[in-house]
Order: sequence, then C-alpha cells, then structure tokens
Amino acid sequence: MLIVQKYGGTSMGGCERIENVAQRVIQALDHHKCGLVVVVSAMSGQTDTLLEYAHFFSSLPNTREVDMLLSSGERVSSALLAIALESKGIKAISLSGRGAGIITENTHTKARIKYIDTNHIQKLLQEGYVVVVAGFQGISEEGEVTTLGRGGSDLSAVALAGALHADLCEIYTDVDGIYTTDPRIESKAKKIDKISYDEMLELASMGAKVLLNRSVELAKKLKVKLVSRSSFSASEGTLITDEEDIMEKPIVSGVALDKNQARVSIADVLDRPGIAAEIFSTLAEANINVDMIVQTIGRDGKTDIDFTIPQTEVELAKKVLECFKNDVQSIEYDCDIAKVSIVGVGMKSHSGVASIAFKAMAKENINIMMIATSEIKISMIVNIKYAELAVRTLHDVYALDK
Amino acid sequence: MLIVQKYGGTSMGGCERIENVAQRVIQALDHHKCGLVVVVSAMSGQTDTLLEYAHFFSSLPNTREVDMLLSSGERVSSALLAIALESKGIKAISLSGRGAGIITENTHTKARIKYIDTNHIQKLLQEGYVVVVAGFQGISEEGEVTTLGRGGSDLSAVALAGALHADLCEIYTDVDGIYTTDPRIESKAKKIDKISYDEMLELASMGAKVLLNRSVELAKKLKVKLVSRSSFSASEGTLITDEEDIMEKPIVSGVALDKNQARVSIADVLDRPGIAAEIFSTLAEANINVDMIVQTIGRDGKTDIDFTIPQTEVELAKKVLECFKNDVQSIEYDCDIAKVSIVGVGMKSHSGVASIAFKAMAKENINIMMIATSEIKISMIVNIKYAELAVRTLHDVYALDK
Repeated sequence: MLIVQKYGGTSMGGCERIENVAQRVIQALDHHKCGLVVVVSAMSGQTDTLLEYAHFFSSLPNTREVDMLLSSGERVSSALLAIALESKGIKAISLSGRGAGIITENTHTKARIKYIDTNHIQKLLQEGYVVVVAGFQGISEEGEVTTLGRGGSDLSAVALAGALHADLCEIYTDVDGIYTTDPRIESKAKKIDKISYDEMLELASMGAKVLLNRSVELAKKLKVKLVSRSSFSASEGTLITDEEDIMEKPIVSGVALDKNQARVSIADVLDRPGIAAEIFSTLAEANINVDMIVQTIGRDGKTDIDFTIPQTEVELAKKVLECFKNDVQSIEYDCDIAKVSIVGVGMKSHSGVASIAFKAMAKENINIMMIATSEIKISMIVNIKYAELAVRTLHDVYALDK
Repeated sequence: MLIVQKYGGTSMGGCERIENVAQRVIQALDHHKCGLVVVVSAMSGQTDTLLEYAHFFSSLPNTREVDMLLSSGERVSSALLAIALESKGIKAISLSGRGAGIITENTHTKARIKYIDTNHIQKLLQEGYVVVVAGFQGISEEGEVTTLGRGGSDLSAVALAGALHADLCEIYTDVDGIYTTDPRIESKAKKIDKISYDEMLELASMGAKVLLNRSVELAKKLKVKLVSRSSFSASEGTLITDEEDIMEKPIVSGVALDKNQARVSIADVLDRPGIAAEIFSTLAEANINVDMIVQTIGRDGKTDIDFTIPQTEVELAKKVLECFKNDVQSIEYDCDIAKVSIVGVGMKSHSGVASIAFKAMAKENINIMMIATSEIKISMIVNIKYAELAVRTLHDVYALDK
C-alpha cells in the first residue's frame, strides 16, 4: 500500500507545526504499515517574503530567476521535515523537484507537468525511506528549475500519486474537508464524507480555499483518490473520488456561493447574424472569462443578451465592449449580484430538482435574475443582499444538514 | 579578460545591499569590459536561521538534509542578484552549485571540491551573461547537494577562478583589505597593497576575519590572484599573489597577534627515548593542535618541554596528559599568554631581523617566554598583559606605518 500525503504552508508554518506533521506521518506509518511519499509546501509566508524581495528590484522580475528563488522555500521545508522524521528514528530523505523526477514544460512560474520519472523514488521507497518531496517545483527537460503556479504543491502530490499508482492522496490543510456549504453562512453545514470529482469541480467556489480545480481535474484524469483533511484535527476528511465509487448518490451534495460575479446586460442587440459571436470573441480575446449566458429570443429583429463575468474584469469589459455601442441600445453592468449553485450527481436521474429550488426561493421572495443548468448543477443569479438567505434556504430545502 | 568576484553575507545582507552589489558589478563591467562570474554567500543571518530550525529537531541533524537546507540560502541570494542585474538591463543568470558544475566529494557539510566542469559557465560567458553562482555548495558525483563548510563561498570563488583561468578573484567583505596589523590595536596600521600567499598564510590570525587559510592555500595552488577588498568603499584592497609578482619584498609585512594560545610547561621529563613523541602523539590523537614547541636540552637525564595549544583545548589536554604524571615532575598550564608574530618574505634574504625584534622588546621590558622561527616568520610568546604593547613596538621598529 502506498499513500501520498501533502501538507500545505499553514501545516508547515514553523518548527512546532513541522513537528506535528512528523507525528502525523508516523501515525500514518503505524496505522497503515504503508509506503509514504510526503509532499510539502513552503513554510507559510516564505513564498510571499521571497516574492517581496524580488519585487524590490523589479515589478516584473525575470521568471527563470523567480523560479530559482521560490523553489528554495520548499527545499527548506522538505529538508526540515526529513530532519524532524530522522530525529524520531524514521528513515527519511528529502527530494527537490529534480530529485523526485518531476519533469515539466520549460515555462517558468506556471509550468505544466509533462511526466514523472519515478525510478529514484521507487528505489527509495523499496529501501524503506519515507520520501519527502519539495512540492510546487520541477525541472524542464533542459534541466532548468520550474514552478507550477498557484496550488502547485497539490498538483505535485496528485501527479506523484498518479505516477506511483498510490492508493490514496491526502491533501492536508487547516480545513476539515468539504462541507455542504460554507459553515460561516450556514452553521448547520455538514462535512461531506464522499463526493465525486465532477461535483467537487462544480463546487469550486466553495472548495477554492481547499483544493484548486486544476488538482481535482488532474486527480480525475489520473484516477487518484483524493482526501481533503486537516492536519490540526483527527477528523476523517472528505474523499473525492470517481462517481462509480460512491454508492449513495445524493440528489444535491452542496450549495455553493460566488460573490465575485457581475452581470452584463446588453439590451436590444441588432439581431444580425454573428453579432453575439462577435461580442463573445471580443471578450475572449481580452481574456475575460464569461460564465453564465442568457439570450432572450429576439422580437422586431432585436434581442437581449445577459451574461456574467468576474467582478474584477468589469472595467476591462467596459473598455473592450465600447466598440459595440452603435449596435446595441444599452450595456449595463451590475456588480450587486451573487451566484448561488446547487450541485449533485443525483440530479442526472431525478427530475423536479430545479422546481423545488425555484419554489423555495419564491417563498422567501428572492427574485432569480438568471438561471443556468448543467447535468449536475443549477446556478441562479440573485441580488447580493439575498446571497446568504438563498444559500440557507437551499441548504434547508434539500435537507443537507441531515 | 575574466574576473571572478565574491560577495559575502554582509555585502548581500538585504535588498539595498544587493542593489549596491549590482552597482559594483556594473562598475566592473564598465571599467574592465570583461567577463564576470559573481559568487555570492547567503544573506547574512540566513544560514544561522536555517541551522536554528534544524537544531529545533535535533542536536545532530542528518548532514545530507542540512546541506539541502543550507544550500537554499545561496540559491536565494544568487537569484536576487540576477534579478537586480536584469532589472538594470544587464544580461545575468544565476546558477546553483550544480548548475555551475562544481563537483565535490560526497561528504556532507564539509565537502572538498574535486573538479569543476566549466562547460556550462563558459557557454554562458560567451553568450554575454554575467554568471551569478551560488557559493558554498556543489554536488557529489552521485548528484547529491553538498556544502563546503566554513568560508565555503570563498573556496567556490577561488576554485572557479582557477578552473576558468580568471585574471583576478576579488573577495568582497566589509573590510578594506589586509593591514600591517590590527588597526584596533595600532591606529597607524596601514593597508598592504600586495602580499604573498605565504605571508598571508602566516598572518592567518589577522586575516581570519577576511580570508580563511583554506582559500589562500587553494589560490596559491591554482595560482589565482586574490584581491581582498570592501564592497562598502572604493578602496583598492590588497592583492594576494605569488612572491615572484611582488617587486619590492618588504623585510616585514605585518605583525599578527593571537590571544587564543595557552602554554603547557612540562618540567623534568624523564629523558627516556620516545617520551616526547608519546606526549605529542597522545595530543594528536585527541585532535589537540600543538603550535610552538620548545625543548631544552636535558641535564641529569631530564628535560623540559614547553609548547602551546589553543586555549579552548586546555581542559581536554589536562585530561589526556594525566597519564604522564609519573614520568614528569610537573605539568603547568598558562592561559595568560599571547603569540606575537612578525611576517615577511624579505626575511629570507636579510639577517638580523630577529635581533631587532628582541632588542625592541627588551627596551620595553617585555619578557619573551618562547620563540619560534620559520623562513618568513618569527613568533614570540609574551605575557598577555604586554600583547598590545608588543604589537605596537614591533609595528614601530619595522616602520610598518611608513
């Protein structure tokens, strides 16, 4: 049996916490009698400090050098954990991204993993070592140090678990796992025991603090069973796995809230062929991520288009959409909205899920401004003042606290 | 033309100082129109902080992991200097010990350099890069990260200068160069412009803060011209080179003082064959470094032996010499002594150098307790209360302030 564990920056934040991680590793060894690969992030704050140094000299520091700089943070934490384990009599060895055979593209600060040469790690595991791997980093085929971008250590862990055919990949943070909704909004929110990759991806806005979609997508592709759990508690955490591994498929697994959306309403668009395509390709060229799109059927040769974009990109959108001002009656931007979504694989086989949501919202007098659905998700745009109420209402109507 | 520069931890201590180093590098480029390899230490304090972390877990942390840990300090400072240079429009690139091709023995925390594969650096220099090398580190032939021990970055610089046949190796610290004696003792002490390797080695106690003997010895072996200078002033520094490169050979170049000596006086040693050898081999086995030895010719089958050892090893010496108590009348230990030395290559061809010293000391009523001479050095043991007076007297009598 082989387990890959990953400890984030908060878990590694200081010597006492690294000591705690060492204890966790020893518990896992005692409990599972298994091979262990432990991927670590830099001690919390380290990466920011190093970036501050770099920005002292340049607002756009050379990315090759930034990678050389940042990769040192995980080298430090991995060596410290190996020292901590050794001091407790555990045979342990730290490896840099290079040592772990993590080969990436030659794109600095956001390289993608091409493949992992597991020979060295396999050998060390056979020799009985706990292998501690510096996360977030790799090397290009030219031998240059690269880093994997935000959430990079999670990616290192998932990719290693895939390449080593590990039985489990445990991602340790300071959060117990995935909840049915944000417990700060709904105190009755419950930790989910099992959830499918696809549900997890749709709950991204909820899980972002815990797991980035990049890692979940990779886990899904490589069929790596993920566990999201806390390094500060004994709680079992949440298993994120293939839908087929989940016996009881809940109709609704969770309620997600995203307050970083803005609605763009374009009224009376001339209904000439291709105009919608022009608008959206203009936005795409400006790298503006369009989420929900609703187009009403046109009358009198005109049509209305509503869509949502991240709030942070509203100013940019205003600029690039300026060129359409003669083709439309008006373009309005509304930042006072929130997106509330219910997610569940059970929706595929159950009808009437949406109508329960709409009725519950209506009962609370919450006006739904836009609706978008996918196979396992229903998203609704509401006025931001109703955001929390909407979350609690939906959490309640689907009995997620039971 | 090629110059290797090395900047120590104080010179690299913080972003402002790294900015200053970048300016220095640019000045050198402007002035010499030469190729430049810049070796850097970790930012001051970094190595100590990392060691403290390691010692949190263990008083004897695994040395392989310590090397992984410590080597990160120079990776950080080298990347930052490269970023600083790039931001000023200088083509620069940082290399780890591995990148620089520094191959060492596989002995952690104090590896010796075996050879340097200069291919990669040569290529980068030809492409017009300023090559910034992380000092203090290398890799073993097995690919493991190693460090070179105390003064390791100086060694990296000297070894690189030798392997690259550099014209000069400049060692930057916070000191202007080598002085005729410690300016804190004799304010008339003068900076020396040129000094031979051998004199530098004999002045070690004076130069220890500036250059370790390990580096000077390597420079001598590789025929690397060393310059000791300050990164905080425009002063020219001191050139340390082959004796043959020095036209005017001064009779006395400098006066050194060592207060970390203790005298051991063994009285009435039974003059049986081999007893002196037994005493000194016993000390050697205990790793006690014996410096000056004076043995008086025996009378009545007995002899007196006086020698000096580092003060820090007196307690150990007492323990290991205990076994000789029946062979000798007494063993006395005197820590209130100092070693004053005059050093100069000119002594080889001048007679009467010693007698000038002895006369000057006598005139000041300084009793000389022991004397030892080599081709280019005369060392005298005096009571510690006369240490500074002796230094000033000798500095004066050889007119070193002129």
